[in-house]
Amino acid sequence: MATGFFDGLEPVRFVGADAREPYGYRFYDKDRVVLGKRLEDHLRLAVCYWHSFCWPGTDPFGGETFQRAWMAAGDPMAQARLKADVAFEMFDLLGLPFFTFHDRDIAPEGATLAESNANVNAIADVFEGKMADSGTRLLWGTANLFSNRRYMAGAATNPDPEVFAYAAAQVKTALDVTHRLGGANYVLWGGREGYETLLNTDLKRELDQLGRFLALVVEYKHRIGFTGTILIEPKPQEPTKHQYDFDVATVYGFLKAYGLEAEVKVNIEQGHAILAGHSFEHELALAHALGIFGSVDMNRNDYQSGWDTDQFAMNVPELALAYREILKGGGFTTGGTNFDAKLRRQSLDAVDLIQAHVGSADAIARGLLAAAAMIEDGRLQATADARYAGWDRPENAAILSGERSLEDLAERVSRDRLEPQPVSGRQEYLESLVNLFV
Amino acid sequence: MATGFFDGLEPVRFVGADAREPYGYRFYDKDRVVLGKRLEDHLRLAVCYWHSFCWPGTDPFGGETFQRAWMAAGDPMAQARLKADVAFEMFDLLGLPFFTFHDRDIAPEGATLAESNANVNAIADVFEGKMADSGTRLLWGTANLFSNRRYMAGAATNPDPEVFAYAAAQVKTALDVTHRLGGANYVLWGGREGYETLLNTDLKRELDQLGRFLALVVEYKHRIGFTGTILIEPKPQEPTKHQYDFDVATVYGFLKAYGLEAEVKVNIEQGHAILAGHSFEHELALAHALGIFGSVDMNRNDYQSGWDTDQFAMNVPELALAYREILKGGGFTTGGTNFDAKLRRQSLDAVDLIQAHVGSADAIARGLLAAAAMIEDGRLQATADARYAGWDRPENAAILSGERSLEDLAERVSRDRLEPQPVSGRQEYLESLVNLFV
Amino acid sequence: MATGFFDGLEPVRFVGADAREPYGYRFYDKDRVVLGKRLEDHLRLAVCYWHSFCWPGTDPFGGETFQRAWMAAGDPMAQARLKADVAFEMFDLLGLPFFTFHDRDIAPEGATLAESNANVNAIADVFEGKMADSGTRLLWGTANLFSNRRYMAGAATNPDPEVFAYAAAQVKTALDVTHRLGGANYVLWGGREGYETLLNTDLKRELDQLGRFLALVVEYKHRIGFTGTILIEPKPQEPTKHQYDFDVATVYGFLKAYGLEAEVKVNIEQGHAILAGHSFEHELALAHALGIFGSVDMNRNDYQSGWDTDQFAMNVPELALAYREILKGGGFTTGGTNFDAKLRRQSLDAVDLIQAHVGSADAIARGLLAAAAMIEDGRLQATADARYAGWDRPENAAILSGERSLEDLAERVSRDRLEPQPVSGRQEYLESLVNLFV
Amino acid sequence: MATGFFDGLEPVRFVGADAREPYGYRFYDKDRVVLGKRLEDHLRLAVCYWHSFCWPGTDPFGGETFQRAWMAAGDPMAQARLKADVAFEMFDLLGLPFFTFHDRDIAPEGATLAESNANVNAIADVFEGKMADSGTRLLWGTANLFSNRRYMAGAATNPDPEVFAYAAAQVKTALDVTHRLGGANYVLWGGREGYETLLNTDLKRELDQLGRFLALVVEYKHRIGFTGTILIEPKPQEPTKHQYDFDVATVYGFLKAYGLEAEVKVNIEQGHAILAGHSFEHELALAHALGIFGSVDMNRNDYQSGWDTDQFAMNVPELALAYREILKGGGFTTGGTNFDAKLRRQSLDAVDLIQAHVGSADAIARGLLAAAAMIEDGRLQATADARYAGWDRPENAAILSGERSLEDLAERVSRDRLEPQPVSGRQEYLESLVNLFV
Ligand SMILES: [Co+2]
Ligand SMILES: [Co+2]
Ligand SMILES: [Co+2]
Ligand SMILES: [Co+2]
Ligand SMILES: [Co+2]
Ligand SMILES: [Co+2]
Ligand SMILES: [Co+2]
Ligand SMILES: [Co+2]
Repeated sequence: MATGFFDGLEPVRFVGADAREPYGYRFYDKDRVVLGKRLEDHLRLAVCYWHSFCWPGTDPFGGETFQRAWMAAGDPMAQARLKADVAFEMFDLLGLPFFTFHDRDIAPEGATLAESNANVNAIADVFEGKMADSGTRLLWGTANLFSNRRYMAGAATNPDPEVFAYAAAQVKTALDVTHRLGGANYVLWGGREGYETLLNTDLKRELDQLGRFLALVVEYKHRIGFTGTILIEPKPQEPTKHQYDFDVATVYGFLKAYGLEAEVKVNIEQGHAILAGHSFEHELALAHALGIFGSVDMNRNDYQSGWDTDQFAMNVPELALAYREILKGGGFTTGGTNFDAKLRRQSLDAVDLIQAHVGSADAIARGLLAAAAMIEDGRLQATADARYAGWDRPENAAILSGERSLEDLAERVSRDRLEPQPVSGRQEYLESLVNLFV
Repeated sequence: MATGFFDGLEPVRFVGADAREPYGYRFYDKDRVVLGKRLEDHLRLAVCYWHSFCWPGTDPFGGETFQRAWMAAGDPMAQARLKADVAFEMFDLLGLPFFTFHDRDIAPEGATLAESNANVNAIADVFEGKMADSGTRLLWGTANLFSNRRYMAGAATNPDPEVFAYAAAQVKTALDVTHRLGGANYVLWGGREGYETLLNTDLKRELDQLGRFLALVVEYKHRIGFTGTILIEPKPQEPTKHQYDFDVATVYGFLKAYGLEAEVKVNIEQGHAILAGHSFEHELALAHALGIFGSVDMNRNDYQSGWDTDQFAMNVPELALAYREILKGGGFTTGGTNFDAKLRRQSLDAVDLIQAHVGSADAIARGLLAAAAMIEDGRLQATADARYAGWDRPENAAILSGERSLEDLAERVSRDRLEPQPVSGRQEYLESLVNLFV
Repeated sequence: MATGFFDGLEPVRFVGADAREPYGYRFYDKDRVVLGKRLEDHLRLAVCYWHSFCWPGTDPFGGETFQRAWMAAGDPMAQARLKADVAFEMFDLLGLPFFTFHDRDIAPEGATLAESNANVNAIADVFEGKMADSGTRLLWGTANLFSNRRYMAGAATNPDPEVFAYAAAQVKTALDVTHRLGGANYVLWGGREGYETLLNTDLKRELDQLGRFLALVVEYKHRIGFTGTILIEPKPQEPTKHQYDFDVATVYGFLKAYGLEAEVKVNIEQGHAILAGHSFEHELALAHALGIFGSVDMNRNDYQSGWDTDQFAMNVPELALAYREILKGGGFTTGGTNFDAKLRRQSLDAVDLIQAHVGSADAIARGLLAAAAMIEDGRLQATADARYAGWDRPENAAILSGERSLEDLAERVSRDRLEPQPVSGRQEYLESLVNLFV
Repeated sequence: MATGFFDGLEPVRFVGADAREPYGYRFYDKDRVVLGKRLEDHLRLAVCYWHSFCWPGTDPFGGETFQRAWMAAGDPMAQARLKADVAFEMFDLLGLPFFTFHDRDIAPEGATLAESNANVNAIADVFEGKMADSGTRLLWGTANLFSNRRYMAGAATNPDPEVFAYAAAQVKTALDVTHRLGGANYVLWGGREGYETLLNTDLKRELDQLGRFLALVVEYKHRIGFTGTILIEPKPQEPTKHQYDFDVATVYGFLKAYGLEAEVKVNIEQGHAILAGHSFEHELALAHALGIFGSVDMNRNDYQSGWDTDQFAMNVPELALAYREILKGGGFTTGGTNFDAKLRRQSLDAVDLIQAHVGSADAIARGLLAAAAMIEDGRLQATADARYAGWDRPENAAILSGERSLEDLAERVSRDRLEPQPVSGRQEYLESLVNLFV
């Protein structure tokens, strides 16, 4: 029996590029095959629980605007079940293959951790039934180690070791539940793993704590036979002034420092890339170059706002460049495209929730199709590759393979009177080439 | 025989805190001992050649404003000698112990690399004599691998291997000269080691080139017996859209990836920290935590400008927090405090050049004295340390030493019914405590 | 009978600059006379109600941390009275002359506007008694037109005219209460007066609404004989993507457009200046230049965070430059220095609340004393004035008074063969001069 | 006789949307009529002289990369003539209707102003002939009041009145030449009209100087019968720390303050909007709302770089939103779309210059076509308008017309028990609607 929340709204269908209404997929034709794979399998789109079903529309200067039925006063577990009903109704309406959640999104915190864990497990039971019915799969689960005041000074990086222990216990349950629900990945986002002021912080000590915590998770994963990927989601700041998982490069150095680079990958969020001073495609390309690309949190940060705006991604050319990097690196394996995006707080209606996902899924699909077309065309890649052709000559390959010393090179410059001349980088031509496809 | 450039200006002397004129050191009393060391030996202040003697006052929208005699048309080597004369006159006027330079600062580029190298060596001969006379020492040398158009697409990371070779040959001479002049360090700043657009860039390949280049320098250093430190200077961008040596964390990951973390340290610039979205003290503290702290380029970036403003550092409370991090980590070994700062382009006169160095040296000295006082007072550190006291308990130390599993911790939370309560971080108290000393 | 909240804390006294504990005013000696006025009368410090007594420690990713007794469940009006008791206890402990509030800070929103207004008036009655007892005065009152969801799309600029009317009615009561309590000013901050997206916004229409709203307030102020100043507080964004009162220059243009520049002044917040891409002293100097300087919201924005951090101001050199601009313009008339600053959410204790105000009041006092010393010294001003001396010559004064045409000037350049030569701006000398006083 | 610079390059022709090479207009079909006007007349595209023919590829850390023949040593006026030949060859190749220039772009500065003016006039003679031949028209001229060191501390706002006079004399000639060449507008960009530090600046005095200067230009324009529009180009900073013409809102306030709002309009640059913390469409919409929209400098700023990157605009969805604002306001009258964009400094070849203009013209044309389609569709506008429908009711119209007081509104809220309920702003729907057209 339906909750009634989406009353009057039709399941979203593929309607083709010529449709003149934005309700309906114009480009997200999930069975269309490009580069040898179905569009659905390329994108692996996931709806997130927190923004769509838990965030009430608050901001730092304003209260709730959405007033969903399941957010009203009442029995918390009954409300959690109602929320689950609505969530799966939306997954069905949208016809998207995955979802994602934090432990505290799906079930209320109890008076003790034991009670909280019981609540999470009870809702996981509900999910198991619904997932079997609907075919919706779990892209990843995660533990909320940032909202409760006990975590205000960090979870793994808290000066109080009991908070570390508490966080570890909470992650254990979250990972167990993710495993039980067949999650393809498990994510750690360290919103409180950082500092407000160096005046009260021991950086080295906290990094060691964080390294140990991550190792605990990796060890446990193997022990229980969880074959999904452990992912760290970088973010430079907010809520914390500085967060240790600043960006992809920082996470890579951290993994290397603690010997975890073969065990952990990154979940890259567009908005977090922007806040760290990077383009999204930079973070994607770097993660591939470093061998730690995992998954993406797809959204869009307002370029003029200095905080995490988590808007639905809508700019097709930007999306095309992002998926080009993803496809160049081989595409997703366990990862996928998670909508870490929330409605603007003035978008009050159920239809807004559907429309936002449809509009963004469609922009994302156009992006991937354009990226695939660029790759099939081949000119972009060929132009870039041609620049490096000189390195294939044995004389030059020997440099990279370590067979030449600084003195050798100095002598070669002198002997051959090298006077290398610059050649055009052709940026505007390449940008115009991109515009053929978007 | 004096050049006349500084005519009418007296050597700068220590005049004490009560002096009411800004010409004269009020706090930089070089022989004053704090924390067991002379102030001069704590700070190891260095004047940089490029900003003070080479930059003509241009900006992206305007031409030269300074019109120094040695920048006028004429025989380039004669002008380089005049510039050296003026430089050492200024070192003497200021009474500061060190200087720093790029190869192209001190001598003109020739028609060939051989000729350029000869020019550099000829001026190095001049320097040897002057350094013996004046006692001024070389904090570090470096090669300019960014101004000439041959490097427009990178030096080590250029798609053309002949540019790589050319850069290697140039660095060889710069390192030889630095070694000959007794330089305490050798710096690499990769202003062109990055990209303008990912559309024509192979990130992985360029990182490998950069790693190999750095290894070549390290290998050569050992071969010639150079005992100074090899330093990378991080900067996130500018001139390039993205630079590979983005910040301290990124450089650390890069060093780990190429196995160079024991060989190379960082030269941290205040302005570059700001441009990367960090506070200066963050970068300093992180470098210490990661074991790669080397030296600092001291300046100040305008907080409202999004480019490298390289102003003289003047804000004492900020400087105090920076030197507190430096002192906490043990202070400088081979490194020092390089004035990577330039006059505003409207500060036309010789006296401006002196006044800027005096004013900033004094602010720096006040910063260090305040930092030392904070450390001697001990309350700041004690307050921070007390937060972590729980980790000393055996039960908790066992977590970090790897003797506890996730299951162990979950069981402990359950068994002991842990419900850790947050305690105040006391940030405003600590900030007020800092204000006792600045 | 005391609430017990501040149990164990002594009233804060002037202890002198040599005190080595941060609890106690080292510089805020309220009766000290500088530039002919008592320090208290120069600064006119005010404690704000919202940050200190209403904000529970939430942030966009975390719940309440403070858990004050008056924030717990219970009768809202009883809690409001308890809050008032605590507030006045703090005013007494601190010995500061003023406070500020929003209507919704002091009393709970009722089921109807009439009920809300009654609540506000009931607490105003309480305030009247307490103010008479303690001597604490009201710097300004204001209406909260941003938290309730009815204002999500603006108050004065709402597309729904009934929201405009509602806001007008709310402001009427807030202004009445401010008048009754002898408020020296009345403030309007337009946190929701802006837009999230231009796609659903009629800019021109909304500006007209805002202009009309402001005129209504001005007309009413005169009708009731309120002699305080009406102040607009600029902020560029947050919560809204774009706010109409972006910065001082924008507010000035707005006032001119609606003929209100003689009636309304600005309340300038440090953090908002930073978010708009300005230095605080820029906004202060500009407001004086435009004749609309009113009051300040004193705090400090983190330079690396892109949102409103509202920290307690602690950097003395920055404060000195700010008060220098305030004093140069003649100082405050009805305005003052409002602590629009909140504890970090980890600063849980009552003593943190006191310490933060003491530490910042002291830094502010040092700033003002330094600024006064700069002004008495005179060299800064004299150096600046000397640059413009040429304009006093009759030939040049005639240009500004409109007696010369473009042709006249062209002819003069030609006739006199003018070839004006640049002179040094002496920035580093001036910055060093400032450092004599801070 | 051709210069040979563009040898081998064909005139750019309209080739249709299906063409698979980026050389050729796929969308810029200049005679295509949309919304009743030819595309060429909608866009009024102009090539700028400075970026395309004068900038040598320098940046703050690197020297010239382009090495064009006309930049080499030689007789300056001969080189200026060669440059003019190349420029008009490019205008012909591209087939675009307009160009723009600074006085110093087209002719070298002489030993005296008289000589500089003679040089400018001599090249203007050359232009007259070429314009008659080619049909290329002048969108606007302007004077370079920022490169020469005499302007380092401002032109109109210089502390030295002789610099003011010099600038006035220079503008007179530039305006005379613009008038003679039939320029449709005359632009003032105040790159040095601002300050580096408030410590040596009298803000009020400098604003008065700037106001007087602008008035002189306006008065002269009328005297000589120039019927083009006087335009100010806002920019927040760079090269100067703070520029007085910060953004559209600031310029509006400035014009109001000096009574020039009916005489002067704005030339809005995309990159400058971004640097001021605004979206481009914000600045466009605001200029229309304030009645001062004039023209646009079309380019694109890198969102991660904090300086003026002046890239060729390529993102179609962003361009569509910009032209939607332009069209909504009635489109251009005297204004147009000036390519204030420069090649990346690695784009060395003549073909890069052509390709960049073609690629961007095409993206711009797509943007305008999409904007026109949105307007013809009508749904976007209708959705926005519907939000404000309540204001048409007489009761509400009376508020805006000044017939209601604050008391009236308070009484109405009370009497009618108004409790206005928020309605959805539908942002994601509207964004999805936009995506139907781009
Ligand atoms: Co995310
Ligand atoms: Co986010
Ligand atoms: Co540096
Ligand atoms: Co720098
Ligand atoms: Co405020
Ligand atoms: Co604020
Ligand atoms: Co422009
Ligand atoms: Co620009």
